[in-house]
Amino acid sequence: MEPEKRAPSSDNGRTSAPIELTPVGIIRNAIDKPFLTPGKHGITMDGEFEKVKSDIHKRKQEISTITINQELTGCLDGIEHYSHLTILYWADRVPQESRAVTRVHPMGRKEIPEQGIFSTASPVRPNPILMTVVRLVERDGNVLKVEGLDAVDKSPVIDIKPFTRGFFPGDEVRIPEWMERVMEEVNRDTVS
Amino acid sequence: MEPEKRAPSSDNGRTSAPIELTPVGIIRNAIDKPFLTPGKHGITMDGEFEKVKSDIHKRKQEISTITINQELTGCLDGIEHYSHLTILYWADRVPQESRAVTRVHPMGRKEIPEQGIFSTASPVRPNPILMTVVRLVERDGNVLKVEGLDAVDKSPVIDIKPFTRGFFPGDEVRIPEWMERVMEEVNRDTVS
Repeated sequence: MEPEKRAPSSDNGRTSAPIELTPVGIIRNAIDKPFLTPGKHGITMDGEFEKVKSDIHKRKQEISTITINQELTGCLDGIEHYSHLTILYWADRVPQESRAVTRVHPMGRKEIPEQGIFSTASPVRPNPILMTVVRLVERDGNVLKVEGLDAVDKSPVIDIKPFTRGFFPGDEVRIPEWMERVMEEVNRDTVS
Repeated sequence: MEPEKRAPSSDNGRTSAPIELTPVGIIRNAIDKPFLTPGKHGITMDGEFEKVKSDIHKRKQEISTITINQELTGCLDGIEHYSHLTILYWADRVPQESRAVTRVHPMGRKEIPEQGIFSTASPVRPNPILMTVVRLVERDGNVLKVEGLDAVDKSPVIDIKPFTRGFFPGDEVRIPEWMERVMEEVNRDTVS
């Protein structure tokens, strides 16, 4: 139990003690680069929107393997009873200098007004931890085969959580108009 | 672009380079301790199940503030257009020694067979990053007021992501029988 009046760990909204994570495994797949390129001033799309859209759809079907460190194999016990998993991974190709960026044009698209990083799924963020819900194809010992993981090959895995709809809100979810539009555009005319 | 044949960052499924995060803000609320107590051998429930159940329901209505570090205030721009946010925070009260635990009885309940950590929402995990989807009540500068954040007071925030249903799978989600039962028990006879 915490003491009632311990020294505050915040000064004027600022917290400082760094946090150290250890990768729990590694992702392998055929994705050799992100479709959004991180830089000092934000993100840029790799090519035209139609190409990026096609990349996004391909990645939803991409099969990746996640190899968990041997000593953590027990952490996977029972995971085969879930159809979907939430993968937290570290975007290790995002350069340190990008981590100070606070606003971006979503997907690097100049026609969409700049948004704060926390209002977007940008890979450029103060702590570039990315999260994808994937379909579990199979588990074999310390190796998971999953579908739809949009991480770049060799990204370190930080955590795996079960995906359980009950943890999430239902029909009352509201999102900004620009995000509705982006998602609608990405999903339109899907060639699968 | 990555070179085709760079040196592998994994040896036999093991990745080693540690990752350093910087807290982006701090959570303040009236929750002074977790309802699951982390220890060297797993987790134990703080009190009887009925009390824990009541705590869980209270926490779904708990109002917390999240104060973002001043220099990152711009990261919040546009966030007020979302109804729900995904908060990633660091469970800093989980002791280092707990991070080697690989299996737990879910919620510390001995009658449920042990499961691998990655099959549970246990706060004890190799990297204790916890994730909660909350309702955004209001934003005022660098301070968010949110409902339903079950973090302990003064937990450091690592990242905030928009909650957008389109990122998640639909009706095809399947979860283990023990998880169905736990969620059903927790939700049964809700006094709100």
